[in-house]
Amino acid sequence: MVTRTVDLRSDTVTKPTETMRAAMATADVDDDVLCHDPTALRLETEMARITGKEAALFVPSGTMGNLISVLAHCDIRGSEVVLGNNSHIHIYENGGISTIGGVHPRTVKNNEDGTMDIDLIEAAIRDPRGALVYPITRLICLENTHANSGGKCLSVEYTDQVGELAKKHGLKLHIDGARIFNASVALGIPVHRLLQAADSASICLSKGLGAPVGSVIVGSNSFIAKAKILRKTLGGGMRQVGILCAAAIVAVQENVGKLEGDHKNAKVLAEGLNKIKGIRVDAASVETNIFYFDIEESSKHTAESLSKYLQQRGILVMLEGPSRVRIVLHHQISESDVQYTLSCFQQALTGVPDQNGI
Amino acid sequence: MVTRTVDLRSDTVTKPTETMRAAMATADVDDDVLCHDPTALRLETEMARITGKEAALFVPSGTMGNLISVLAHCDIRGSEVVLGNNSHIHIYENGGISTIGGVHPRTVKNNEDGTMDIDLIEAAIRDPRGALVYPITRLICLENTHANSGGKCLSVEYTDQVGELAKKHGLKLHIDGARIFNASVALGIPVHRLLQAADSASICLSKGLGAPVGSVIVGSNSFIAKAKILRKTLGGGMRQVGILCAAAIVAVQENVGKLEGDHKNAKVLAEGLNKIKGIRVDAASVETNIFYFDIEESSKHTAESLSKYLQQRGILVMLEGPSRVRIVLHHQISESDVQYTLSCFQQALTGVPDQNGI
Amino acid sequence: MVTRTVDLRSDTVTKPTETMRAAMATADVDDDVLCHDPTALRLETEMARITGKEAALFVPSGTMGNLISVLAHCDIRGSEVVLGNNSHIHIYENGGISTIGGVHPRTVKNNEDGTMDIDLIEAAIRDPRGALVYPITRLICLENTHANSGGKCLSVEYTDQVGELAKKHGLKLHIDGARIFNASVALGIPVHRLLQAADSASICLSKGLGAPVGSVIVGSNSFIAKAKILRKTLGGGMRQVGILCAAAIVAVQENVGKLEGDHKNAKVLAEGLNKIKGIRVDAASVETNIFYFDIEESSKHTAESLSKYLQQRGILVMLEGPSRVRIVLHHQISESDVQYTLSCFQQALTGVPDQNGI
Amino acid sequence: MVTRTVDLRSDTVTKPTETMRAAMATADVDDDVLCHDPTALRLETEMARITGKEAALFVPSGTMGNLISVLAHCDIRGSEVVLGNNSHIHIYENGGISTIGGVHPRTVKNNEDGTMDIDLIEAAIRDPRGALVYPITRLICLENTHANSGGKCLSVEYTDQVGELAKKHGLKLHIDGARIFNASVALGIPVHRLLQAADSASICLSKGLGAPVGSVIVGSNSFIAKAKILRKTLGGGMRQVGILCAAAIVAVQENVGKLEGDHKNAKVLAEGLNKIKGIRVDAASVETNIFYFDIEESSKHTAESLSKYLQQRGILVMLEGPSRVRIVLHHQISESDVQYTLSCFQQALTGVPDQNGI
Repeated sequence: MVTRTVDLRSDTVTKPTETMRAAMATADVDDDVLCHDPTALRLETEMARITGKEAALFVPSGTMGNLISVLAHCDIRGSEVVLGNNSHIHIYENGGISTIGGVHPRTVKNNEDGTMDIDLIEAAIRDPRGALVYPITRLICLENTHANSGGKCLSVEYTDQVGELAKKHGLKLHIDGARIFNASVALGIPVHRLLQAADSASICLSKGLGAPVGSVIVGSNSFIAKAKILRKTLGGGMRQVGILCAAAIVAVQENVGKLEGDHKNAKVLAEGLNKIKGIRVDAASVETNIFYFDIEESSKHTAESLSKYLQQRGILVMLEGPSRVRIVLHHQISESDVQYTLSCFQQALTGVPDQNGI
Repeated sequence: MVTRTVDLRSDTVTKPTETMRAAMATADVDDDVLCHDPTALRLETEMARITGKEAALFVPSGTMGNLISVLAHCDIRGSEVVLGNNSHIHIYENGGISTIGGVHPRTVKNNEDGTMDIDLIEAAIRDPRGALVYPITRLICLENTHANSGGKCLSVEYTDQVGELAKKHGLKLHIDGARIFNASVALGIPVHRLLQAADSASICLSKGLGAPVGSVIVGSNSFIAKAKILRKTLGGGMRQVGILCAAAIVAVQENVGKLEGDHKNAKVLAEGLNKIKGIRVDAASVETNIFYFDIEESSKHTAESLSKYLQQRGILVMLEGPSRVRIVLHHQISESDVQYTLSCFQQALTGVPDQNGI
Repeated sequence: MVTRTVDLRSDTVTKPTETMRAAMATADVDDDVLCHDPTALRLETEMARITGKEAALFVPSGTMGNLISVLAHCDIRGSEVVLGNNSHIHIYENGGISTIGGVHPRTVKNNEDGTMDIDLIEAAIRDPRGALVYPITRLICLENTHANSGGKCLSVEYTDQVGELAKKHGLKLHIDGARIFNASVALGIPVHRLLQAADSASICLSKGLGAPVGSVIVGSNSFIAKAKILRKTLGGGMRQVGILCAAAIVAVQENVGKLEGDHKNAKVLAEGLNKIKGIRVDAASVETNIFYFDIEESSKHTAESLSKYLQQRGILVMLEGPSRVRIVLHHQISESDVQYTLSCFQQALTGVPDQNGI
Repeated sequence: MVTRTVDLRSDTVTKPTETMRAAMATADVDDDVLCHDPTALRLETEMARITGKEAALFVPSGTMGNLISVLAHCDIRGSEVVLGNNSHIHIYENGGISTIGGVHPRTVKNNEDGTMDIDLIEAAIRDPRGALVYPITRLICLENTHANSGGKCLSVEYTDQVGELAKKHGLKLHIDGARIFNASVALGIPVHRLLQAADSASICLSKGLGAPVGSVIVGSNSFIAKAKILRKTLGGGMRQVGILCAAAIVAVQENVGKLEGDHKNAKVLAEGLNKIKGIRVDAASVETNIFYFDIEESSKHTAESLSKYLQQRGILVMLEGPSRVRIVLHHQISESDVQYTLSCFQQALTGVPDQNGI
């Protein structure tokens, strides 16, 4: 008897809009492996422009975007990458940079705001004179916004500082910009400025921007040339891919403007939840479209029972631990959905049990 | 002033049909990484049924399909795969099974009909007692139809024999069935029978069947479970992938029946070309939609000059060497296109040079 | 005009003793790849006995011992190992487990005593239900003594606890026991007891025990069978290796008893250095034969200038940073060498500059 | 009741001579990882001189020598090596270049004399313009003498031709010179001339030269610098390795002169065996110290029963198949051993069965 679905598990769950479907239905396409699909070319050109890089490449997923980027920068056997111990690449991508790519990760502690201390990054860079026992550091990775810290934005200043550090040590800087448009909107800084210090970035089009499939990686022409070979090796070269790129072009055109609403909804939801007895969320720290909340021990619910309760009311959330839940807003969650969600939470935590005892 | 395009480079160049575009525009989709996209599920269920296997998985390309399959069967370090020295996996997939997967290839000579002699396959299987110096053979790969031999079909009898051999030695059998539907149509044998001896197969939907993007791998439930993890690791997990799967479902429904026409067109074209002075093609050996022809030394054209000449008339072909050209038919090449192509060839090889001297 | 050499850089610098040389000169040897060298067999049998494991294997170095062990336990693609962020394997072995072995490392903070908090280890173990995005944790590594923390010993209780944790999660436990004999002597606990919870261990014979070359890895018969194949793959299979094993047998027989003296010398040297103005060393925390000291900023020396000063007097030390120095004792450093060293340090830090101005 | 052992399985089975043992007992040694063992340095300098290369590096085995060499030349992900389908690297080294190094092998048919046809090598080199689907060819490997063809020598002319080809395509040439001294003696051409066209070579000291352990790789200074890092990564860095190098120096000084005798003994043995009914060996083609013989079907023996018969008389041989046996001569097989062996074979194949029925 669920009347609506409010899917707060991730911003990857959005369905393609009517405009996207129309664009896909009429997209001009060609074999993107043999030559260059015109719509893919159009998307890539536009993304290179937006990010201020020489070139761009469409890939089937953010995971492939990061994998290709790390492997392209670390193309010589014996390479090491310095990255956050709580970064998406390290935690959620199957360890592919090692298990598929043979790159050795060296982690630095991620702070609560998604940064790593500059001096800790520098300390993690290997002295090339020790190459007999050390791998060679070739790359630093940042993530903006930083998902596991609750969608925190990295500032231009911080990013530039890391860029300086990379340059000083002859390293490359890759930014996992899965949600770089969220950072751009939240900070009021254009994407190209946020990526200025980066040698490459991976940008997801199927998260907040709502495209059905795909990410784009951007960088120099020589980086993208390497990336194209790696994409083929990994099996990410697709034929009439312009179908997907057509939707992605619409996503970039139409949905960047909706991100601000997502951030506002996140704030409203976080603040509302924090007022509910038994839930603890640092609403002041919500910067973009992601936050985590904790269920207090005294509560009548665990994360699992709460999730089950909500599911019966059409609300889907992501469990992150026995008492921790992740919430992600996106353009297909309306203000009304937020109010509905708050009322369900209220009832779940303070109301009387329903007939199933939950 | 080209009035039409006749793209004979590959059957990957087909554009999605109107039915496919309509299907994509209305496809029911969901996040295929978080849960299971309903249209992907529908395609996978159908492909499992057609191939007679327990399960199926949509992947972005045939290269990824093969890569995942080899890696899933060879998941233990130190594995070796026996495959044809002229197989697509060995020649055209960047060596990814080694460079990304660490699997050691042991090649066996491909005969002109795409088979490998059974006794040579057996001789290439390592004696496990020599494991101190030998890698462990874990997999045999076949390719049906065999592209580099000109789209030759492997018979059920042959495939079954290799399957027996694999079983005898405790090995798995993977079939690169990029064009298995062509083999099925040409042999008049259902796909599931052609794959009966196989533990897995990779089947392309964006070649002769004309889907814009994608392949499907099929096998046991446990194989597909491994494959799903590998797909994520490689970055082939896609979100609302039902868009692509909707087109692929149409491809399977509507285009299998068109393959016979492609084969007929290939035969007509090959026979016609063979009658043209300066071109040599073994038309009798054309079994499906691919053939190669050679340009005789006495001809006024090299492959390159011929290709350039044809291109000016809208005809695209694939060079395979200084005097060798590949031709691939598909459902967007009509009988009339074939006749047009023949007349252009005729003119190219026997006519007077045009104003550009070619 | 240096009258003696006091090499405090590492316990790897020891020269073979006369007994070792005599043993090597008369060792009974055979081709250890084709069959089994009798002296290698003798050493391996003895090491299996001492460590309480089923079997042992001689390898050319501790690095190979650790590499083989990690790869043997993580023989399936997609494996992760949990290990200390300051462990020898992570810091000083070229990242080989990733760059050569494709194993993904997940680090846990090493405490000052070389341990990792049990709950942090447990938190680092991946939930196998997340295998779609997580690598599979298969191994935990400990290091006893822990070199980078200054040769600290892991207690039996701690090791057993980690062993319990590993068992609970179906993981293997490997102990990098490069200096496990030092731990055994310092703790007064037999080696086999310290390794009881471990599925494998790598034990160096060319550090404190003074053999010219080699380590031994120990574990179950099936582990050693895998290890033997990996040793051959890596190129560590050696022919008449009994030459080296003969010296190693002497090392185990004659030099374990000398370790206590090394520990005493380390203590004396650390306490003596701590009394010298400008040097800071936590002498109380010296447990075995390694310690680090810091040069205070107010000192007239940097680590580099001090090292140069000492070198002119035959004393070799290892720089670990601009103001940090590592000292390692071994059986070829006498009590008199310790006194000589102390007097040179005294002069260096408090005396008048020599004619070279240092 | 065996009165002597005649070990014909391999030239790796030789025991160190008295001179070698004496050299090991008095070798001047140091920690070859921290600095440079003086005896290792002496051996490496001498080997660089003999081979006409800039530098040399001692490694524990020929397998590691080849592995390091291939990996050093193919240090960029996506590399391919062209090598013989019957080469030691491809057949007997666990596929380590792929399974450990991620290098893709492309094999070319080895002729009976160990060569590969130059035009087939050239055809196997990938066109770099196809890098989107092709791995990048970076290396050609030769093997001199070629073990699996029965120790055949590659001529200077052939090697130079392959070197020219490599240069023309911007590739490196590695020679697996495990038995290059045998080739040098048999051809009457100095080793440095045989290796002139090579960018690197791996030379075994524990085969015909009789050192207990080790190989040396030679090449340019920059190649050896890369090799040294790879040696450490693989775990082949050894401490007081001068012990082994001392024996190797003796091997080079004293045993090169003995190889001619081995070749003569091989010839005598092959010719003698060929006269025995039931054995077929192409004695005329024996060039160095290795040959294979076949047991005719009509014979009373299989390879296995013959091997067992011989073993009871102290003669050890290597089975290569149900009716194929390998024989290798070395400096610890005397002319008298050859005669003894011939008489045992004679008895085995033509005499009456012994009491065990064999």
